[in-house]
Amino acid sequence: MSGSIYGKIFSISTWGESHGEGYGVVIDGCPAGLAIDEGLIQQYLNRRKPGRTKYSTPRKEEDKVRILSGVFEGKTTGTPISMIVFNENQRSSDYSEIASYYRPGHADYTYDMKYGFRDYRGGGRSSGRETISRVAAGAIAVSILKELGIQVYAYTKSIGPVTIDYHNCRREYSLNDPLCMPDPEASRKAEQYIMEKHEEQDSVGGVIECIVTGMPPGIGEPVFDKLDAALSKAVMSIGAVKGVEIGDGFLVAARTGSENNDPFAYDNDKRLIKLTNHAGGILGGLSDGSEIIIRAAVKPTASIGKPQRTANKNNENIEIKIVGRHDPIIVPRAVVVVEAMTAITLVDFLFQGMTSQMDRIKDFYNRIRK
Amino acid sequence: MSGSIYGKIFSISTWGESHGEGYGVVIDGCPAGLAIDEGLIQQYLNRRKPGRTKYSTPRKEEDKVRILSGVFEGKTTGTPISMIVFNENQRSSDYSEIASYYRPGHADYTYDMKYGFRDYRGGGRSSGRETISRVAAGAIAVSILKELGIQVYAYTKSIGPVTIDYHNCRREYSLNDPLCMPDPEASRKAEQYIMEKHEEQDSVGGVIECIVTGMPPGIGEPVFDKLDAALSKAVMSIGAVKGVEIGDGFLVAARTGSENNDPFAYDNDKRLIKLTNHAGGILGGLSDGSEIIIRAAVKPTASIGKPQRTANKNNENIEIKIVGRHDPIIVPRAVVVVEAMTAITLVDFLFQGMTSQMDRIKDFYNRIRK
Amino acid sequence: MSGSIYGKIFSISTWGESHGEGYGVVIDGCPAGLAIDEGLIQQYLNRRKPGRTKYSTPRKEEDKVRILSGVFEGKTTGTPISMIVFNENQRSSDYSEIASYYRPGHADYTYDMKYGFRDYRGGGRSSGRETISRVAAGAIAVSILKELGIQVYAYTKSIGPVTIDYHNCRREYSLNDPLCMPDPEASRKAEQYIMEKHEEQDSVGGVIECIVTGMPPGIGEPVFDKLDAALSKAVMSIGAVKGVEIGDGFLVAARTGSENNDPFAYDNDKRLIKLTNHAGGILGGLSDGSEIIIRAAVKPTASIGKPQRTANKNNENIEIKIVGRHDPIIVPRAVVVVEAMTAITLVDFLFQGMTSQMDRIKDFYNRIRK
Amino acid sequence: MSGSIYGKIFSISTWGESHGEGYGVVIDGCPAGLAIDEGLIQQYLNRRKPGRTKYSTPRKEEDKVRILSGVFEGKTTGTPISMIVFNENQRSSDYSEIASYYRPGHADYTYDMKYGFRDYRGGGRSSGRETISRVAAGAIAVSILKELGIQVYAYTKSIGPVTIDYHNCRREYSLNDPLCMPDPEASRKAEQYIMEKHEEQDSVGGVIECIVTGMPPGIGEPVFDKLDAALSKAVMSIGAVKGVEIGDGFLVAARTGSENNDPFAYDNDKRLIKLTNHAGGILGGLSDGSEIIIRAAVKPTASIGKPQRTANKNNENIEIKIVGRHDPIIVPRAVVVVEAMTAITLVDFLFQGMTSQMDRIKDFYNRIRK
Repeated sequence: MSGSIYGKIFSISTWGESHGEGYGVVIDGCPAGLAIDEGLIQQYLNRRKPGRTKYSTPRKEEDKVRILSGVFEGKTTGTPISMIVFNENQRSSDYSEIASYYRPGHADYTYDMKYGFRDYRGGGRSSGRETISRVAAGAIAVSILKELGIQVYAYTKSIGPVTIDYHNCRREYSLNDPLCMPDPEASRKAEQYIMEKHEEQDSVGGVIECIVTGMPPGIGEPVFDKLDAALSKAVMSIGAVKGVEIGDGFLVAARTGSENNDPFAYDNDKRLIKLTNHAGGILGGLSDGSEIIIRAAVKPTASIGKPQRTANKNNENIEIKIVGRHDPIIVPRAVVVVEAMTAITLVDFLFQGMTSQMDRIKDFYNRIRK
Repeated sequence: MSGSIYGKIFSISTWGESHGEGYGVVIDGCPAGLAIDEGLIQQYLNRRKPGRTKYSTPRKEEDKVRILSGVFEGKTTGTPISMIVFNENQRSSDYSEIASYYRPGHADYTYDMKYGFRDYRGGGRSSGRETISRVAAGAIAVSILKELGIQVYAYTKSIGPVTIDYHNCRREYSLNDPLCMPDPEASRKAEQYIMEKHEEQDSVGGVIECIVTGMPPGIGEPVFDKLDAALSKAVMSIGAVKGVEIGDGFLVAARTGSENNDPFAYDNDKRLIKLTNHAGGILGGLSDGSEIIIRAAVKPTASIGKPQRTANKNNENIEIKIVGRHDPIIVPRAVVVVEAMTAITLVDFLFQGMTSQMDRIKDFYNRIRK
Repeated sequence: MSGSIYGKIFSISTWGESHGEGYGVVIDGCPAGLAIDEGLIQQYLNRRKPGRTKYSTPRKEEDKVRILSGVFEGKTTGTPISMIVFNENQRSSDYSEIASYYRPGHADYTYDMKYGFRDYRGGGRSSGRETISRVAAGAIAVSILKELGIQVYAYTKSIGPVTIDYHNCRREYSLNDPLCMPDPEASRKAEQYIMEKHEEQDSVGGVIECIVTGMPPGIGEPVFDKLDAALSKAVMSIGAVKGVEIGDGFLVAARTGSENNDPFAYDNDKRLIKLTNHAGGILGGLSDGSEIIIRAAVKPTASIGKPQRTANKNNENIEIKIVGRHDPIIVPRAVVVVEAMTAITLVDFLFQGMTSQMDRIKDFYNRIRK
Repeated sequence: MSGSIYGKIFSISTWGESHGEGYGVVIDGCPAGLAIDEGLIQQYLNRRKPGRTKYSTPRKEEDKVRILSGVFEGKTTGTPISMIVFNENQRSSDYSEIASYYRPGHADYTYDMKYGFRDYRGGGRSSGRETISRVAAGAIAVSILKELGIQVYAYTKSIGPVTIDYHNCRREYSLNDPLCMPDPEASRKAEQYIMEKHEEQDSVGGVIECIVTGMPPGIGEPVFDKLDAALSKAVMSIGAVKGVEIGDGFLVAARTGSENNDPFAYDNDKRLIKLTNHAGGILGGLSDGSEIIIRAAVKPTASIGKPQRTANKNNENIEIKIVGRHDPIIVPRAVVVVEAMTAITLVDFLFQGMTSQMDRIKDFYNRIRK
């Protein structure tokens, strides 16, 4: 396991390079009897496809998914689910020059140091296309969560200087917005900003927020496998993410305890709730029944047309312009990836969460036996 | 493995509760031949002890470590290292009332939901004392890193509104500063601020920064086990942490690519360096040879004397004041925990990093055979 | 994880050396609410203690267990259970000469090759006393199985040339028999045989059989984590075991399909049963509801008084006599270890087995929510 | 991870069903720079293909492998290697009746119990064709071992009553023998025996032995991850295996210590050797530098034409004859699977074995830095 396998019980194993045969994922640990089809997976894959905005890379990537195993007569069988998306339209010729130098902000240099050998065509394994595998698996995780009454929703919270306030927004809107923003006004401003920077041959970053509703309380594991720790890893493992927050995140550093603590209270139906949710739905590493809130800072696309200084492999300091088709922003396409990684992580923890009480285990097996 | 085991090759397994017999850790995967003694571990444990500032909890915790296995004649044997710190001075009586309600900001409610059963004395497993095990293991990880020429250094970057600029500071100073700040002026102001809030029976938060020097490039694994993803999990797994950043973190969201990319260049000695380090020493999930920079947002102590609303177990909404001895700030004591978790994670990845190239493996075994 | 951690959900982490401070185990993943006490663990530990037969090593080892965490008011809390047995009566002086040469049948040479450094006093980590940790954890696993209606029973099937037929025997007898045989006649003959060999300063081996009743069908995982594969590893990991069989084991190699297949049939109560059990209760790696049968071949004690040829560390071929107190047979003391390893493995697989069907998971969480 | 992922550092994740789209494997953790091509993998796959003997199933399975990722310009890149073999010639119609009852010796019943839902066409995931994935991965493991000077060789040791003595045989012969026996005389007799049983519409079993030469000493991990324990699991996880032995295996149970201990000695070149090898190359769970010897008992094919009693899903006891094309013996086709599982396990342990000594780790990183 050198980094391409994720999850303890609901495990995914991914493979693929940007200019190889394609991308794929094998899910081991999906329960039997879940209704699943290629159409459902495809919907999620379409959300991460390029070409949705006028700025995004004009490469036509079909990214048609094919399920190769683990599904029989429309339902999962409990055995590994293998999915594949064949690469199309990959022109290696674009990358011949790139192989000679180290692109700033890319993994060219670090891959060379690690492997001593690299598939230099378009980033190889470090390409953003690697997230195809995550999203395909994420679609299945989302289906499992739906069966358990849990929703995962991510959206673009900010692009460059344009930030939106989620509470003024409509979720449904963001699903059709080219920038995945739930606020048309903010989306227009952000579009303007991207346009400007794009014309300067530059790129922009932003923030993605993900909200989970319907989680039962008590999910997560104490100490190292806290639910927030696991979600941080999940989200930080997405290529361009440089920061992660749970609930109010970095704001808590300047707060006092009396400002930051969320009071518990019984509501009118005598159900225990929290009156505020600074904690973002997790206390002591376990879900507390309120909304789980995660935020990710996404860096601007590393590939830019603007001239940059860098070093080549002949010991020379040079200036480069990266030509070719590159998105001026990663954020909108990463929204579904954040959803996917969150969903996969939650499923794994919900499955692990079934053995925390002896009585529940006993009850489970008593039901099976009769 | 329900959350108390961490690490793939260099693995630690921790145990203990705040009012049980003590805390301990078993390290499996420490190489043989490392010089180690209890004094070295004790140094690290002393850095997390309470009572260093006038505000911190006056409990006298000796926290004397004892090594029970894995070390023979002053050197590790390669077999599991078991360390134990017996609890002393734990008065259960303090906690009798607490058991009847859910403290805001604590894990009382979520533990009840998960386990249906809780050691209510002082937080049980969710107590901050759990980090004793991490620090003991961290001291050994730091020793391994030292052998490999790698240093891990953490310090208090901000407390409430007081933030320092690391580049104006002296590292050595922070080791003796009661707040672990490397800037005496900032430390004084922060002390003032804590004092104020303490008198209001409130608590404060802050930010810890951790800097790693001497890492060889190419360490980390692609995709899910990126070094930054692993460090995020490591740091977010520490009790009060609510946000994690690598390098410039959330600042990158408002940057352009040309501002954010770090140019590569050859220095005068023809060594490849990066001219800036916005990336925080990690590219594509692999170390790039420059300083690794991690930041953690730490929330204010949840236990405060100020009156708070909450719910008890009799379906009543009540008001409480948490009495007893509680630190008004967690930050300074968590600094060494951040160092420990970083060091443990780096050791695990350095060990994993030995099998990335066939030639290196071949060379390794050829040397052993002859 | 370098070999001393075992189990995926119900995980045990063991430590200790024969002449160190003691032995211990940390269990991570034991559910909350299980009634447990030191007396129950002690019963199991007493079954592996030396000194039960006249031939066994006269060392007085008290092996008193102490539970340090994870149990509160007589019940498990769901957090790690740490148990410790302090060493007593270890005389290092016995082992001073041994350090200079490689004992045949022992791990002296291989540990030197692996670690370059060894705690030479009495075998260090490779000593049979390491099984203390397994048995302590096994006692807890057995308690969990009992809650689920599952029994694990092991006994001595053969010693040297003396083999018993299990179907003629009474289980209860074996628990008090010094050789753990359920047949007094066979036990007497075996005792005679051991006596003879003991007088020749030699040692003897034997076979242990373990039988599991009450397992629900469908437990195990396909392909690599077949239940029989996991049990084989569990049992083969016990020091002196050199062979493992499931059901009829090696006998099947000389059978035909029509002889070896177990017919399915409905019994008078219309329950599905197997008419024979050559398969030993496992089909396709999953439990089939009939008795699970495992057998282990245990080699004769490697330490013998009889003169043996070997090599020392000064490049000389020498002749040695191993003096000191050594059991002429390992088998009876290993019986409880086989039970322990089987129980630990079954618990881990029963816990893993809760997520194989979507409907069951849904039902589980629906019950928790209401 | 529900059973289809294997290995800690050199990890394989397999997928596929007998009547699905095909079979595949993803290897995560293969080092970069290893020369590999489809031809090499194909050679191994051809050894497990049916149709080599006159008795074997006449199905024409091409089993053409395709490498989809992880290899660039003839060398591994260090990223996941995905391989696929598309199914051909699978006639589902053959299996329509089979779905209505539980075949003796098969996993029909246990899969139903576990998953509540089954791909009934030809065994689904429990089909012997699953080993395609293992063999493809095994071919790569063998290539790695070859680079390290290690050979793995398996052969048919017995079929029914016909047993051969390995020391009288020539290895090369077995590679071309249809029964994988290194002794033409025994092979002829075994063929005769199979023929007889085949005519009676019955099937036969046998024993496979696997020998590893060139292993450096000290490989393996103490306690639970002993090399022999891991190899037992590896081999027992192959469908029809019911027993595993290391070295002299079950014979040791009737031996004395003086007969069973292998004396160490210096040979004429002053190298330390063992004068005998009853232990099968492993002491204390670690390789001792001599040949590693593993044996597996393989049951007769469960599918037989002879009438058998069994139960159907309508609560009836019935008699069945399994028609269709079935091999009367599994053994010769499983030989390469035993080699594959052994090779994969050894690679994983050799990789794990690089961090046992601090000095070696230090030396490794010193070399990389300069």
